[in-house]
Amino acid sequence: MTDHSSDALTALTSLAGPDALIEGDDRTPLLEEWRGRWPGEASLVLAPGSTEELSSIMRYCHAHDLAVVPQGGNTGLVGGQVPQGEVLISTRRINRIRDISPEDFTLTAEAGVTLEAVQDAAREAGRLFPLSIGSEGSCNIGGVLSTNAGGVNVIRYGNARDLVLGIEAVLPDGRIWNGLNRLRKNNTGYDLKHLFIGGEGTLGIITAAVLKLYPRPAETQTAFLAVPSPAAAVDLLSLVQEKSGGAVTSFELMNANLLELVLAHFPDLPRPVETRSPFYVLTELSAGRQGVLAELTEDILSGAMERKIVSDGTIAQSEGQAYTLWALRHNASEAMKKDAAQCVKCDISVPIREVPSFLEKAGNAVTAEAPGARIIAFGHMGDGNIHYDILAPDGASPFGVKKGARLEHLVHEVVVAHDGSISAEHGIGLLKRDELKTRKSDVEMEMMRAIKTVLDSKGLMNPGKLL
Amino acid sequence: MTDHSSDALTALTSLAGPDALIEGDDRTPLLEEWRGRWPGEASLVLAPGSTEELSSIMRYCHAHDLAVVPQGGNTGLVGGQVPQGEVLISTRRINRIRDISPEDFTLTAEAGVTLEAVQDAAREAGRLFPLSIGSEGSCNIGGVLSTNAGGVNVIRYGNARDLVLGIEAVLPDGRIWNGLNRLRKNNTGYDLKHLFIGGEGTLGIITAAVLKLYPRPAETQTAFLAVPSPAAAVDLLSLVQEKSGGAVTSFELMNANLLELVLAHFPDLPRPVETRSPFYVLTELSAGRQGVLAELTEDILSGAMERKIVSDGTIAQSEGQAYTLWALRHNASEAMKKDAAQCVKCDISVPIREVPSFLEKAGNAVTAEAPGARIIAFGHMGDGNIHYDILAPDGASPFGVKKGARLEHLVHEVVVAHDGSISAEHGIGLLKRDELKTRKSDVEMEMMRAIKTVLDSKGLMNPGKLL
Repeated sequence: MTDHSSDALTALTSLAGPDALIEGDDRTPLLEEWRGRWPGEASLVLAPGSTEELSSIMRYCHAHDLAVVPQGGNTGLVGGQVPQGEVLISTRRINRIRDISPEDFTLTAEAGVTLEAVQDAAREAGRLFPLSIGSEGSCNIGGVLSTNAGGVNVIRYGNARDLVLGIEAVLPDGRIWNGLNRLRKNNTGYDLKHLFIGGEGTLGIITAAVLKLYPRPAETQTAFLAVPSPAAAVDLLSLVQEKSGGAVTSFELMNANLLELVLAHFPDLPRPVETRSPFYVLTELSAGRQGVLAELTEDILSGAMERKIVSDGTIAQSEGQAYTLWALRHNASEAMKKDAAQCVKCDISVPIREVPSFLEKAGNAVTAEAPGARIIAFGHMGDGNIHYDILAPDGASPFGVKKGARLEHLVHEVVVAHDGSISAEHGIGLLKRDELKTRKSDVEMEMMRAIKTVLDSKGLMNPGKLL
Repeated sequence: MTDHSSDALTALTSLAGPDALIEGDDRTPLLEEWRGRWPGEASLVLAPGSTEELSSIMRYCHAHDLAVVPQGGNTGLVGGQVPQGEVLISTRRINRIRDISPEDFTLTAEAGVTLEAVQDAAREAGRLFPLSIGSEGSCNIGGVLSTNAGGVNVIRYGNARDLVLGIEAVLPDGRIWNGLNRLRKNNTGYDLKHLFIGGEGTLGIITAAVLKLYPRPAETQTAFLAVPSPAAAVDLLSLVQEKSGGAVTSFELMNANLLELVLAHFPDLPRPVETRSPFYVLTELSAGRQGVLAELTEDILSGAMERKIVSDGTIAQSEGQAYTLWALRHNASEAMKKDAAQCVKCDISVPIREVPSFLEKAGNAVTAEAPGARIIAFGHMGDGNIHYDILAPDGASPFGVKKGARLEHLVHEVVVAHDGSISAEHGIGLLKRDELKTRKSDVEMEMMRAIKTVLDSKGLMNPGKLL
């Protein structure tokens, strides 16, 4: 039973201290889902200034059966951060960088530090924090880890999960777990951090993390290539990885529909290659030393053209040119928003070699159901991660809710038939909670529920999300 | 209560089938700890031939309260694989490579495949499986994952945990969990595999895993360098990582005591550098393209010598020379065994920048307690992982058990004061189980016990190990 009596809330308010209480108009940006997809409602909105303050709040909530929703930068895409009447706890005021050690290649940041601030701090220390996602200016490390964010550099550096050495978390009953391991090797028991990372705030609240840093690449090379088919893109990925010895830091696929949409809505961006092609690849290589990549990229490309897996291509000759090529990718969401705010959005992954078959079969299923539908397929092909969006036919009104759900279901069926995932990088949250039960095995769901029950016995942490 | 009645064992024997029953002399190699440190005893020794067979056995054991000890290649260093009267289940007959996909950079292997067989299969497919440890010829993938093995390439590729996309496991009650995820991105709930990886068989038995493969490097460069101090080695690591853009695949430290010991016991190995120095570094760089590294390594070394963080060095000019340099490192354990079978062995890690302080303070503590003790310090400095062994003074008899425990305790105290780990890569097993409780926080121990209780409610999995 959740005790929402005004007595409990008053007591909690005074416990949290005046700076932590968010009231009036200041509540709005924390309650609104940024695209307006879910209405947010909270009995109280608190933003504690330290792990200890958060711990006191959680201790009180636990004792009084108050359910809690943790929130980072409020940039999530599946509603995991949206409260539905609970106490909303924002970690954005817990936002110090506690330590940077270039020799250890580590940086310790609190939950409320933005991803961009971590990238900047690493750069100033002569290091690289490689995680990069669209919302990096506003998303917070706490949210990035709780959702195991992905992005454009996963092929080389892994997901958020792979970039963490240790975490600090406040448990559902308010106890602080100091798991701020800074070691590369530490085999002393169960690796508990991986439950909280990607746990979407259902087991506790991450308050700080020790992040891995990397040497900065001395040189990057960006190329935009026309490929005749997704199968050619798969071959190209193998070729580039082999010839470069794993120097690929990004390998993004986009179909012609997306390129034309971006070019139409961003007329300042030049067409990158003359040859029209059903698919394109944007790839970036990086090297530790200047002057290595230019020749290498030329070599690889001429080999790929000989093998007819690339039909045309541009290699950026300057940072400005690279930026322009990347703008074609970075403006994908904006272009779609301008063209058709409402569309069916799928965030899926399949094994890399299955990408061609997935695209073919999903396309067949979609066009059988909705002739003329425009399919926008793009994303991190190097990770098998495709953002698969479906727009209504040119000039037609957007798909209704029911039709949209039907199309998403059809795509997910194809995903599952290819051993894929219905949420590659965005998570489950509210959006896919019901579907999760139907996609996971009973054994796995039971283990997840058992862990939820034992670590959050009162079920107070982000209820209704994920599980 | 454990039911060891002969009825139950007879029933289990017939359930497992004749091929699974290991009897007579065939039991010996599975019951003996390979260095003879712990006596092994089992009520029954079974080696099922498939996940399904293992599942039936586990189902029976669970129903009849029979405790179980899983075992891989029996190469563990902390006694985790040693039975103490339980049913011993060896996974060595579950040993097929189920799938290799060079395009996906994945390989799916069953628990009983040796690490070397995985490396070989990857190589034949034009790929690299980078995990490399001393026992790779005989250790099994199941054990490698259950103990989260480390080794010499962690600095570039991570520990065993980092090289896994998914696992299949048999749970304590015999249910099979198919978590054989092949995806690079899959954010659909708690990442359960990380409980089993490094779980030392206390939560279930890993039966198969999807492993990450990498492009093969086109070229490697090996150098053996004399460094004036551990602090110089820390600076050198930063320098090499920066100048090479993260091309370091190994960075091993060894002190003069070890080098002299190896040279004394392996007279065929030439002294690698003329300059006598208190410490040496063996480092390997790798690149995706031929002809890049020679000049780069020369550049880095001359820079390091100018900065006086390297006093002398040899760069291997051929594969044979590289092999000879690596032999100095690979024969470390053998040399110690020849010199003094009994010594105090610590497998510790500290943050990289703390290595110099750790070595100084641990050295002081040891020589105060045992004047004349010979300290052998070596290992994976790029991961902050030092194998810190203490031999009795030259000519003296080996330390007794009590003295050895006292010395180990002193070293561990210094480790903890440096935010380090008392088990960097070998695990807890029987050896460090009692100490673990005193080193971990109550919060962490309680979470670990809660998870153990909920996933193995009868406490039948590898009892007495880890927790």
